[in-house]
Amino acid sequence: MIRTEILSVGTELLMGQIANTDAQYISARLPETGAGVFFHTVVGDNPSRLRECLDIALGRSDVVITTGGLGPTQDDLTKQVIADHFGLKLIDDAGSRRRIEEFFKRRGQIPTDNNYRQSLIPEGARIIPNENGTAPGCMIFGTGAFSGKTVIMLPGPPKELKPMFDRYVMEYFAGRSGMALKSRFVRICGTGESAVETKLMALIDGQTNPTFATYAKDGLVTVRVTAGAKDEKEADELVESGVNQIINILGDDVYSVDNEEPEEALIRLLKANSLTVSAAESLTGGMISSKLTSVPGASSVFMGGVVSYTDAVKHGVLGVKQETLTKFTAVSSETCREMADGVKRLIGTDISIAVTGYAGPAVADEPVGLVFIGVAAGGLTYVKECHFSGSRDRIRTLTAVNAIDFTRRIVNELTAALGCGESEGDNA
Amino acid sequence: MIRTEILSVGTELLMGQIANTDAQYISARLPETGAGVFFHTVVGDNPSRLRECLDIALGRSDVVITTGGLGPTQDDLTKQVIADHFGLKLIDDAGSRRRIEEFFKRRGQIPTDNNYRQSLIPEGARIIPNENGTAPGCMIFGTGAFSGKTVIMLPGPPKELKPMFDRYVMEYFAGRSGMALKSRFVRICGTGESAVETKLMALIDGQTNPTFATYAKDGLVTVRVTAGAKDEKEADELVESGVNQIINILGDDVYSVDNEEPEEALIRLLKANSLTVSAAESLTGGMISSKLTSVPGASSVFMGGVVSYTDAVKHGVLGVKQETLTKFTAVSSETCREMADGVKRLIGTDISIAVTGYAGPAVADEPVGLVFIGVAAGGLTYVKECHFSGSRDRIRTLTAVNAIDFTRRIVNELTAALGCGESEGDNA
Repeated sequence: MIRTEILSVGTELLMGQIANTDAQYISARLPETGAGVFFHTVVGDNPSRLRECLDIALGRSDVVITTGGLGPTQDDLTKQVIADHFGLKLIDDAGSRRRIEEFFKRRGQIPTDNNYRQSLIPEGARIIPNENGTAPGCMIFGTGAFSGKTVIMLPGPPKELKPMFDRYVMEYFAGRSGMALKSRFVRICGTGESAVETKLMALIDGQTNPTFATYAKDGLVTVRVTAGAKDEKEADELVESGVNQIINILGDDVYSVDNEEPEEALIRLLKANSLTVSAAESLTGGMISSKLTSVPGASSVFMGGVVSYTDAVKHGVLGVKQETLTKFTAVSSETCREMADGVKRLIGTDISIAVTGYAGPAVADEPVGLVFIGVAAGGLTYVKECHFSGSRDRIRTLTAVNAIDFTRRIVNELTAALGCGESEGDNA
Repeated sequence: MIRTEILSVGTELLMGQIANTDAQYISARLPETGAGVFFHTVVGDNPSRLRECLDIALGRSDVVITTGGLGPTQDDLTKQVIADHFGLKLIDDAGSRRRIEEFFKRRGQIPTDNNYRQSLIPEGARIIPNENGTAPGCMIFGTGAFSGKTVIMLPGPPKELKPMFDRYVMEYFAGRSGMALKSRFVRICGTGESAVETKLMALIDGQTNPTFATYAKDGLVTVRVTAGAKDEKEADELVESGVNQIINILGDDVYSVDNEEPEEALIRLLKANSLTVSAAESLTGGMISSKLTSVPGASSVFMGGVVSYTDAVKHGVLGVKQETLTKFTAVSSETCREMADGVKRLIGTDISIAVTGYAGPAVADEPVGLVFIGVAAGGLTYVKECHFSGSRDRIRTLTAVNAIDFTRRIVNELTAALGCGESEGDNA
């Protein structure tokens, strides 16, 4: 097994300004290629300590992946220190220089000398293009005393690192390993992690190929199904059988077998059935619309929405009856129903989503975490009462995620009943 | 300065199942005591590799704080390995044993033999009680070859670690350190990281106390100002002088000196001036409203908003003239202006924010990244044309962040002109 170490460079990590999510991301993905992550190290923007850590890492690991310290400023010194350590000169890379120029041109800005420092690359290194920033990454393959050792340098910002890692670094590791390794990610909403684990226990304990690993976040559970085989086809088949076993056990709680977010699954389903959607949001304050519109091409099904943070907006814009607000309050099944009906009428869509609830901080005796989710579709309006717990942020997120998933379930049922569009099975 | 290293033990970190938020938390808090965090290391549940890492850590650091590996199962071996390394026996601690019994009793459960392993403590260690779990922490003070070295062991679950760290570990460090260290975080919007560094270069290069470090993310730059002194007051004054120097150079680009997000700064400013706000969003699809309502207590100033993802909603709900949409298209200064005016009228607020633009993916010859930001306030409507680049997600985020910051600037100017509320200086 290729022993890999992640060496993250950045004082912001040692000051606790950010968590080391780069190391987490790389660690989660690398085992798919058969390689193992054995150590993470974090060091500040300090050349002598970075040199020490690099020395230790090269001593105990085959591949060292560095993250961070490739920026344009004086304290970004990863490339310089590593090139020195390997006895390599930094030479200006014309392609990277051009990319930097173009990057600034697109923004109507002029690069500073600092920016051009980023086009310096250790001689002989393989360049890893950065499509989301100005700092290219690179790979150095050691010779002489460093024979068999590889250093891969990636920029720190996750938006730049992730696509570079996915496209170039994964391919490098896959090429080094002899085995074909395949993974799929089954996504589940509406069941907690321990419940999922209990239901899948026989599966998880009974099999070594494929393997199953569960992971929970923000009200969603992901099961990674991974199989290794002599070729890709056989690995794919093993993974496929594992995925089908999960669907047989969990049914409609499985909303995607392609690692989609709930909003991606819903937009896909709405597109397949040519249905339009709108949203009326109280406590989520725009999160549901924002999630739906984060999906490229959402504009063919999502028309718009209203954030109704006050009773006046609920009444004046959405047409919730004053009587309903007075009698049942803004956080009630009745108000939620009228919000869903109101936004559907106002925006003129086939389907609408509405949420109202208490996210906290608690005022008077408000039951923080009480949430109503409403979906208007096919002439009916469905309202579900939920009780979430945790921070304000968590309650808002759980509300948005569950509202989107509740909509998927209703659209699924309606279209299955009508025998049109995707069947339940296709979607699951 | 006391050199501290955080050594986190757990295969779940090396598999990427969780991010190392324990290390982040400790790193963020420790500098308050004058101690510095110089390294983070993560190692799996493997005795020989843990021994190696411990050896390296004790060689380069005064204090090693371990997190994780104190659980009841066989792969929890931090205590055993460290006790062996220091040549100490593990002895049963009666107090910890009693706490474990009581912990299970409260839950109506009976502890297993595994659970009692957790009451074993290296002889001579100082115990750190755990009020939220069964694994006590402890401190070992080295003698002989380890003279001057301290190891502090804490459990991995954040709910257990944080209170133990806050109460016992912070106190230990404060007692040891003679020096007070203070940091503040100055936040900047509207200027890129290299431009900020260029402007602050004389400051950054010319001073060692306070020190200045920059960090960029999502269109925002953070400058950390840190100073050390013999007491808190003096350290505070040094930091304060550094912060003021930044404000003198960057002016209104500084939107917070308290590490706030742009939405927190805006909500604070609106509250101070008793002004209400609404938003009309096209490409951001609810992100602006969602960011504003993420701030606890936002409901006193944010009233609501409209996500107008289609021309029909822009016209029908916001009242943008059909003629404007036809003549100038949906992505134009004119449409943006009418969106701002429309949502202000519809929701009935003092101020409104509107955005329209192309986030991509590109359709036909749309100039992806062209964005208009409009703010209606004090009888006028201001529209700014922006050109962003990057992924769809990045363009949406930059739009939301810059729209919120543009609003802050306008509110600042208006209230300064009227001589009411916070002055520009107070806010900056």
